[in-house]
Amino acid sequence: MNLLLIERHELESGSRVTLRDRRADHLRKVLRVEPGRRLRIGVINGFKGHGTVISVDPGQVVMDLEVEEGEAPCPTVDLIVGMPRPQVLHRVLQTAATMEVARLDLVNAWRVEKSFFQSPSATPEKMHRQLLLGAEQGRKTRLPDVTCRKLLVPFVRGLEDTAPTLRLIADPGASRTLEEVVEEVVEPSLREVERFVVAIGPEGGWIDRELQTFQEEGFVPVDLGPWILRVENAVTAALAQLELVRRSRPKAQA
Amino acid sequence: MNLLLIERHELESGSRVTLRDRRADHLRKVLRVEPGRRLRIGVINGFKGHGTVISVDPGQVVMDLEVEEGEAPCPTVDLIVGMPRPQVLHRVLQTAATMEVARLDLVNAWRVEKSFFQSPSATPEKMHRQLLLGAEQGRKTRLPDVTCRKLLVPFVRGLEDTAPTLRLIADPGASRTLEEVVEEVVEPSLREVERFVVAIGPEGGWIDRELQTFQEEGFVPVDLGPWILRVENAVTAALAQLELVRRSRPKAQA
Repeated sequence: MNLLLIERHELESGSRVTLRDRRADHLRKVLRVEPGRRLRIGVINGFKGHGTVISVDPGQVVMDLEVEEGEAPCPTVDLIVGMPRPQVLHRVLQTAATMEVARLDLVNAWRVEKSFFQSPSATPEKMHRQLLLGAEQGRKTRLPDVTCRKLLVPFVRGLEDTAPTLRLIADPGASRTLEEVVEEVVEPSLREVERFVVAIGPEGGWIDRELQTFQEEGFVPVDLGPWILRVENAVTAALAQLELVRRSRPKAQA
Repeated sequence: MNLLLIERHELESGSRVTLRDRRADHLRKVLRVEPGRRLRIGVINGFKGHGTVISVDPGQVVMDLEVEEGEAPCPTVDLIVGMPRPQVLHRVLQTAATMEVARLDLVNAWRVEKSFFQSPSATPEKMHRQLLLGAEQGRKTRLPDVTCRKLLVPFVRGLEDTAPTLRLIADPGASRTLEEVVEEVVEPSLREVERFVVAIGPEGGWIDRELQTFQEEGFVPVDLGPWILRVENAVTAALAQLELVRRSRPKAQA
């Protein structure tokens, strides 16, 4: 736990919080906190700062919080992922929270096992818990907005951008790297891209018809590397490459 | 299983193989193969091709193999990773095999729990099995050469390069991205880099003294992105970014 996360509704009179769940256990048993101990805290979709332990009792830990940084800006990357099997879903959710994804749409596809949507791991509560673990790991206060989409085509056809967006789809058959897509697609049109959406197929990949639907909606195929990656690795690889390309762009344009 | 992997010593009279373990079970129960069925096969550190099923019996599956591609060239990236906890070790091993790492040194460090080296997951047999799973996933025939290093400093001091090598160490405090390191460190010296070594810290990161030891041996700190990543994600992110930078280099120099 690199950051102690607190839900907004847990704030009492603005700056005091009483923890009674796994966080209280973690503070008492793992960190062995005592009154006066200061810890990094973050309020979900709210401020970051430090908390000072006021009292420690078997059932609860009370803390006073100080604001140090305002609400984090909304992240600029959305993910669309073919619904993975439960174990992989856990890690995809954690990674999405750690690596600051704004929206995560878990979609159906030809090669998705339909039972994955009914898995106990796919309930909103269980998914929220994995997001919290990922955000705690990454010291992030923003949780991705996660939605399950059982109908792929209407979802893709209905996507709307809130700002100029580069739509990408990971495809091992693609001829261009992410760097090349940005050079050849974005820069010639002098398009100011503010947001990114990346679609990652299910285990086994997208079928041709699905790839075509995405391409009809402006998704540009991108080759992440000469590998057949598990879904969770493809998510990490895509986000890592996107970060690198975004950070090297301003210099290239200067 | 995207590729059926066979050990060299299993080859009978050059091209016939008799499988009796989990692979035979997988062929019979999951793929339900019958005589005549052709499958992609690979020999570890050997050729790739197709195998034709000759006979299927409850205890065994016999196949004849055809060579189509010679031995894969030795990959050019080595990893040094702070020894992770057993569950994470499994995934790091799989990812190293899927993403074609040549050598993987699992090292001790201040923030590594010493018990991780004694874990049942860290035996050569268990690690080999995870490498096989990763190679099967990635359709790779080369397995990384994995070694546990309980003494960090002598290991780092004793590293020798077999070819011009760029040594990198992932460090969230680094000021340069991988792209910038290549631009600012490699290109001005017109150094022809043929190989890469990337060091990834344990959970909690390297301590300053460790970072210093690596830097004294020529490791250049590199920032993978604004995240605190779990070890397995840092491995994937580093390999993905390295691939992107390597593939965009020839063009940038042209």
